[in-house]
Amino acid sequence: MLLYDVGNTHIKRYHDGVIERVETFDTKRPFYYISVNKEQSKFLQNIPHATDLSDQFAFHTAYKGIGVDRIAACYTVDNGVVVDAGSAITIDVMREGRHEGGFIMPGLRAYKESFANISAALDYELNTSIIIDALPQNTRDALSYATVKSIYLMIQDTAQELPLLFCGGDGEILSHYFDNSQFKNTLVFEGMKKVIKEMKC
Amino acid sequence: MLLYDVGNTHIKRYHDGVIERVETFDTKRPFYYISVNKEQSKFLQNIPHATDLSDQFAFHTAYKGIGVDRIAACYTVDNGVVVDAGSAITIDVMREGRHEGGFIMPGLRAYKESFANISAALDYELNTSIIIDALPQNTRDALSYATVKSIYLMIQDTAQELPLLFCGGDGEILSHYFDNSQFKNTLVFEGMKKVIKEMKC
Repeated sequence: MLLYDVGNTHIKRYHDGVIERVETFDTKRPFYYISVNKEQSKFLQNIPHATDLSDQFAFHTAYKGIGVDRIAACYTVDNGVVVDAGSAITIDVMREGRHEGGFIMPGLRAYKESFANISAALDYELNTSIIIDALPQNTRDALSYATVKSIYLMIQDTAQELPLLFCGGDGEILSHYFDNSQFKNTLVFEGMKKVIKEMKC
Repeated sequence: MLLYDVGNTHIKRYHDGVIERVETFDTKRPFYYISVNKEQSKFLQNIPHATDLSDQFAFHTAYKGIGVDRIAACYTVDNGVVVDAGSAITIDVMREGRHEGGFIMPGLRAYKESFANISAALDYELNTSIIIDALPQNTRDALSYATVKSIYLMIQDTAQELPLLFCGGDGEILSHYFDNSQFKNTLVFEGMKKVIKEMKC
């Protein structure tokens, strides 16, 4: 089964349990996809044997306008906080199979770029393994600490007693800051596989 | 006494207790200034009767490369957390007249722009008076909540038992989220006045 997760910045392909970042679609073979990228969505609508899964999820939420990638990431989670850390970091709460709400932070790269846009004096590569229990004593640490710790505190505040599930390009880095966490890069694709199974029933 | 605080984005003028955002300097009269803006600093070096206060502060810190605006904001504070919320938000800890460290978050506008740069679907005006104890149920709230609450949690985590002092363009908005806080827009200028007094002794 060939699956594509089309994000704002990247296209991810899933095949035989392997995820790869790709530039284009293998349009010769049938595949399933989700997309939050309007341009790519338009393109995909005209591809034969390309099946959009967007409207197939039976997802229980009061949230208006949630991205289909967030739905897919949450779809196999009954109880937990799902953190998808890509260009943006989405944080969603699932309790007893119901989506209770969520929020969106800038991704790690977006923080870096945001600082660089404010001033050339704040243009640093961030240290994403910074220790977050000592006050910074220089600019690079000041930016890195603020970025990583603000994401950490938001996840911590949200999680309470729920288990944490991380996915996305920066998911593994962030998961290391938590004990009760799991990095599961296939999370979005697991959700897609589940909905395909439901469609076939 | 005429004072200027030259930031990355704006120039602030202080005269007779009144702060104004200005476009240029009144070069006909003598004035004191601090500047974190390289271009403006170059210009100011050639103005007669313009006195740079940068090197005059007797500031006790192990922090390397701290901006002179942060030094000035902290200079009259013996014990407290100083939050200067402008294009960037700087958060600094003073204890018994010593600077213990600090960090830098993006400013409210920088968050907004950061989201817009990630995707047109995230291009919203943020709600900076959002209630931060209920999980968001739509995109605008999801972005606003993440922005305001991450700043809130970082300040809260830093403050512990110390009093909070806010200044800067968004300082008043943020101060409303805290009980033990004071908005003191003149904080940077109070620091400048203190160092001028010391120079004259």
